[in-house]
Amino acid sequence: MKGYYKEDPWSIIEEGFDPGMQEASESIFSLGNGRMGQRANFEEQYSGESLQGTYLAGVYYPDKTRVGWWKNGYPEYFAKVLNAPNWIGIDVEIDGKMLDLHTCELKEFRRELNMRQGYLERSFTVVVNEKILNISVRRFLSMKRDEIGAIRYGIKSWDYTGPLAFTPYIDGNVVNRDSNYDEQFWEMEKTGATEGSGYLVAKTRKSGFVTCMTMGHELHLNQKNVDAGAKVIEKPDYVANRIESRVKSGDEIVFYKYASVLSSMNQHPSVIVEEGEKLLRSAMETGFDLLFKEHSDAWESNWAHSDIVIQGDTAAQQGIRFNIFQLKQTYTGKDDRLNIGPKGFTGEKYGGSTYWDTEAYMIPFYLSTATPDVSRNLLIYRYKHLEMAIKNGEKLGFHDGAALYPMVTMNGEECHNEWEITFEEIHRNGAIAYAIYNYIRYSGDRDYLAEYGLEVLLGISRFWQQRISWAEEKGKYVILGVTGPNEYENNVNNNWYTNKIASWTLKYTLEALAYVKETHPSAYDQIILRAGFKLEEETVAWKEILDRLHFPYHQELGVFLQQDGFMDKEQVMAADLDPAERPINQRWSWDRILRSCFIKQADVLQGIYLFEDEYDQETIKRNFEFYEPRTVHESSLSPCVHSILASRIGMEEKAYEMYLRTSRLDLDDYNNEVDEGLHITSMGGTWMSLVYGFGGMKVKEGLLEFNPFLPSSWKALSFTILYRGSILKVNINKKQVSIENPGSEDLDLLLCGSMAHLRAGGSVVADL
Amino acid sequence: MKGYYKEDPWSIIEEGFDPGMQEASESIFSLGNGRMGQRANFEEQYSGESLQGTYLAGVYYPDKTRVGWWKNGYPEYFAKVLNAPNWIGIDVEIDGKMLDLHTCELKEFRRELNMRQGYLERSFTVVVNEKILNISVRRFLSMKRDEIGAIRYGIKSWDYTGPLAFTPYIDGNVVNRDSNYDEQFWEMEKTGATEGSGYLVAKTRKSGFVTCMTMGHELHLNQKNVDAGAKVIEKPDYVANRIESRVKSGDEIVFYKYASVLSSMNQHPSVIVEEGEKLLRSAMETGFDLLFKEHSDAWESNWAHSDIVIQGDTAAQQGIRFNIFQLKQTYTGKDDRLNIGPKGFTGEKYGGSTYWDTEAYMIPFYLSTATPDVSRNLLIYRYKHLEMAIKNGEKLGFHDGAALYPMVTMNGEECHNEWEITFEEIHRNGAIAYAIYNYIRYSGDRDYLAEYGLEVLLGISRFWQQRISWAEEKGKYVILGVTGPNEYENNVNNNWYTNKIASWTLKYTLEALAYVKETHPSAYDQIILRAGFKLEEETVAWKEILDRLHFPYHQELGVFLQQDGFMDKEQVMAADLDPAERPINQRWSWDRILRSCFIKQADVLQGIYLFEDEYDQETIKRNFEFYEPRTVHESSLSPCVHSILASRIGMEEKAYEMYLRTSRLDLDDYNNEVDEGLHITSMGGTWMSLVYGFGGMKVKEGLLEFNPFLPSSWKALSFTILYRGSILKVNINKKQVSIENPGSEDLDLLLCGSMAHLRAGGSVVADL
Repeated sequence: MKGYYKEDPWSIIEEGFDPGMQEASESIFSLGNGRMGQRANFEEQYSGESLQGTYLAGVYYPDKTRVGWWKNGYPEYFAKVLNAPNWIGIDVEIDGKMLDLHTCELKEFRRELNMRQGYLERSFTVVVNEKILNISVRRFLSMKRDEIGAIRYGIKSWDYTGPLAFTPYIDGNVVNRDSNYDEQFWEMEKTGATEGSGYLVAKTRKSGFVTCMTMGHELHLNQKNVDAGAKVIEKPDYVANRIESRVKSGDEIVFYKYASVLSSMNQHPSVIVEEGEKLLRSAMETGFDLLFKEHSDAWESNWAHSDIVIQGDTAAQQGIRFNIFQLKQTYTGKDDRLNIGPKGFTGEKYGGSTYWDTEAYMIPFYLSTATPDVSRNLLIYRYKHLEMAIKNGEKLGFHDGAALYPMVTMNGEECHNEWEITFEEIHRNGAIAYAIYNYIRYSGDRDYLAEYGLEVLLGISRFWQQRISWAEEKGKYVILGVTGPNEYENNVNNNWYTNKIASWTLKYTLEALAYVKETHPSAYDQIILRAGFKLEEETVAWKEILDRLHFPYHQELGVFLQQDGFMDKEQVMAADLDPAERPINQRWSWDRILRSCFIKQADVLQGIYLFEDEYDQETIKRNFEFYEPRTVHESSLSPCVHSILASRIGMEEKAYEMYLRTSRLDLDDYNNEVDEGLHITSMGGTWMSLVYGFGGMKVKEGLLEFNPFLPSSWKALSFTILYRGSILKVNINKKQVSIENPGSEDLDLLLCGSMAHLRAGGSVVADL
Repeated sequence: MKGYYKEDPWSIIEEGFDPGMQEASESIFSLGNGRMGQRANFEEQYSGESLQGTYLAGVYYPDKTRVGWWKNGYPEYFAKVLNAPNWIGIDVEIDGKMLDLHTCELKEFRRELNMRQGYLERSFTVVVNEKILNISVRRFLSMKRDEIGAIRYGIKSWDYTGPLAFTPYIDGNVVNRDSNYDEQFWEMEKTGATEGSGYLVAKTRKSGFVTCMTMGHELHLNQKNVDAGAKVIEKPDYVANRIESRVKSGDEIVFYKYASVLSSMNQHPSVIVEEGEKLLRSAMETGFDLLFKEHSDAWESNWAHSDIVIQGDTAAQQGIRFNIFQLKQTYTGKDDRLNIGPKGFTGEKYGGSTYWDTEAYMIPFYLSTATPDVSRNLLIYRYKHLEMAIKNGEKLGFHDGAALYPMVTMNGEECHNEWEITFEEIHRNGAIAYAIYNYIRYSGDRDYLAEYGLEVLLGISRFWQQRISWAEEKGKYVILGVTGPNEYENNVNNNWYTNKIASWTLKYTLEALAYVKETHPSAYDQIILRAGFKLEEETVAWKEILDRLHFPYHQELGVFLQQDGFMDKEQVMAADLDPAERPINQRWSWDRILRSCFIKQADVLQGIYLFEDEYDQETIKRNFEFYEPRTVHESSLSPCVHSILASRIGMEEKAYEMYLRTSRLDLDDYNNEVDEGLHITSMGGTWMSLVYGFGGMKVKEGLLEFNPFLPSSWKALSFTILYRGSILKVNINKKQVSIENPGSEDLDLLLCGSMAHLRAGGSVVADL
């Protein structure tokens, strides 16, 4: 479907309506504001294929696990993102006929997602009984008031004269397509309606989340507010107002629908209706135009410190902005109970909200494009789940405070049920430790260790200690039975990446212990006490592991081996595969994939990327050249790491090739699955390949560093990042790189290998 | 529940009724005749917990696969054993009150499974309005007429005078408890009833099997046939006759119900009602007593060549007879489309009918206790599935006639869906090849190779060739990514057993090719042509594999290693496990089990058992002493192999200990799951540990051999086997062993290491 959406630097544009594309477009044109999200379903009735999606951050349903063959340790429930009551609905009747874009005579359909200002707009022309009406609908979810959504539904009659009715409603009769047992997820609590307003309160079964949605409306005829009266419709799971009006040829009628969308995440159920009505009233008093102004201002300031400009390639420009836009509307960092689901607010698939994607691919993005509290909240989210992670560990036989963070979670409990992942893909635990290090490295906030970080590190390190076993005959510690980042290997021994991140965690935890002891002695004492930490015994054990952990290595080739026995596989290159057999995960049986040497996503290279400073260029190159040809990149999270490493070792073409594989993944729907929602978490990886890869950014011992290059097909690349209170604008063209510092503080940095002093308000330049 | 059933050499007896035990007893007291089976559900209404189970051999439902995370290659359907319409039902009303053993006043309940004659009998006393009635019910499924079942329901009134009504019925409204999506499996086709008879025809959804059940009855009052008339009740899914009668104090009333149970496996649907009625009429003309005589005669001749007598241990005696009885009523060997399901006719769990259990644990039993055609039919069953096995291979990426037999099947299609088993537990393929060898070795029927065997061997060997890969650096062929018989390891490399049976298959196929070429040249040419076998190319490749296949071996310990890297595991002994943690499959998470060195069932030892002659006593001993302490025997198929090997190496106590673990598995309900059905396939293993283990039986190059010993707590052990046309009675006591040959042909054999000539009608004796 490459080319279906028009190229534009700031907008995604669909011209002409293709019902077969509607579910894909519903994903692409999704809106969110961190607190709630909405697929681009139509307001008016639509009888074609559609995936209704209204999502409330943090509100989930514990869907009973479905499994073929139960294994001990599987979780009972899988927390599913919930499709919530529909608050956007407005039935529109023209001349007594329900407007439905699937059945009506439709002309000149255009849909635009304006990313600069954060709104969705549809314009189309319908012919009703040979009369023509132009319709234009704008919708946004306020970034300023994150419980408010507003819709402007404008109809201009070209030559139609006759009745026109609007029925705005809230509908609680909604389902999840991705439910395991077709259970009802919502129970209706109450509804209420008066002429001009309505509300619906619903509660999730089992998890007991309450939502209240309220609505109000205004009708303008030829720019004048008119009171057309409203008929109230109220059912147990539905409230509506029916507003009947008339238009003449040339009239312009604008219907405004305002809604407040609250949940018990933030409001006590006893006052939720009252609060909802209060917020709604205030929004209506502000009015659509001012609400929109507030909202688009918020987006403007957002872009000011996160935009990336690519000159000479509109498709790439559109792609990267789309990614930034989606990330920003998925997670705003205000609430440490929220996280970033794989589909964000754009679909219900995969459920859960939190994978190791957050630590590995999201935190770098938020570190550089938002204030430190945003990433910090993502860290605190895990801190708050420490108890649960310890319980999860206990369920699997660990003890004494060993924490195994879940593979997929909403509230800290494990949701995933596939033994080779759930129980074995334990490297995720390391990513959570690494994120603490990464946050501190970038922000300089070392106090975080004393406040939250050390406790999490202790739990994770204890897990590693118990999970690592002694192989007597080898005379080495080993980690048996794991799945690495490359999920095309299951239950392997000594996955190099896992062993690497495990040993690194132990080392970092020892450092963190020493640091906190020295700088925050009383916090230190409390942490040690609370964790029941046996300092001598446990740290000695860790050091012993650090001394004697086995790392598979191929002496002759000089490469780290992905796991024990990797070289026993037939060594075939991905390029030699019959194209008809790709992607192999759709063509090959699982055992065949497992036996092959093909790698789903960066594994050894993921480790080299994380610990780049430990390896010289030659080592990185050898490993890259060994693994890249064996990697099929069938995870959207893979190419970004390869792109960054290729940038590091000067393989600029390969870096660009890898970048292209992610940048427009959803817009061009490479995997033909965008109808299910967007790949939100891979978007962070795309950003990383631009800024860390092409931009060559690094932070090393408190010093920011850039070693950029410009892909040859581009004219220029600029990006803006936040770093320790400064805003930096990095501009790269064919010849040079400049960094502007519009802020008020000087900054020393390393640019293309040389130290540079960047004055407040000034800039530095280097030749490329 | 040890001790719940009374010890008796020939019967299983329950005294007193415990509703909490009803589902377990329904399994234990199951009846079958190879063509159909019936759990011991009561004829009259029963409102307590009960698992209704009426099974028709070969009739299944393709239940849609249920899976948590779909993997390429999984089958769409799982063939489920079907609970069929209920033909045993007889509602009994006494004084207008429905007889129900769950609610009535019950005295002196006794239930007996008489294994010698193959019937189930219940006797009990009920008190109705303070009046006493003795009831006695006998049921059997005719071994002579395998589509006929008969019930004698006798009531003696002690002091009751009043009305008594019988309502025999056939009820199509039945369900499977173990269905994946609560689907209806049966559709009703038609019913018909007249005064005195009725029939019901039902058809399975999707698979389209048709069954017709007919019924007729007779009523005897004080030994006289009476015609009490009958009221016909007919619904779309139910037919019944209601017969009203009266009794006086002292009267004895006997109600006979006869049924014919037909399926489209054997009858064309267009004539199935007619045929059913014909069979029913003939049975009724024969009458209950003569039918029973035929049936019990059939059992008598069955026992004549399969009984085992243990003196000095009634529990052991009962246990082994129970096992033989169940095996004999599950599979009679008449039909090469049938096989032996893990639950036989005693429950619906696990579905499918055929696992590698048949080849590994059943064929030895049937070889020795039935004529060769019975085992031969089990082999032909697989021959008929060869095409499907090749298709199954193709689904997983194999080609050119490579056959992978399914893990679980009914009709040749794979049913199982758990990747580590379905795709990886490929050693099953070897067991199917071995069974051909085993059958020929025992029966001497080498022509089987030309007729059927070679084609199967070719398909399996081609699979091994493609599945085996070359490990360049090792300079060895390897088999990667398998699950061995020990399912507590998944996705391992070079499982010794798998490599062993794979290479053995290649070698045996080469021998079979040569043999058939020499002895059946024209059959040979046809086989080669039909299989498109490239003689030179393929056999050269096999020989190369035979030369250079890797077998993990531990030099220092002198043991075959279960798989690559086995010694990297922590070597803990099962005896050192906390008893509270056992069975580990109920206490430990799956990953923990996988990482441990604990072995679910004989793996290396399974290979040593199969190829015993290749290893000297010392090698067997070293391996046994290494693996036995690491084996937790959490499969019912494990202890028998350990028992046999322990017998071989003179560890008599260990052999007996292992034997005890299987012999009364179901009767004493060790795993607390007998309510779901019996462990039919493990019963073959129990038999093997007696005859192969204690009896020390072997066949080597056409020569039968015995090296027996008697467990010290027994007085004597005798067993009867069939061998190449002879019936041999082996009697072992503390001092000596004698073998009688009541047949008409002389036989040479090896007894306790010495050649013996056993004359027809004579016997040989050896001291122990």
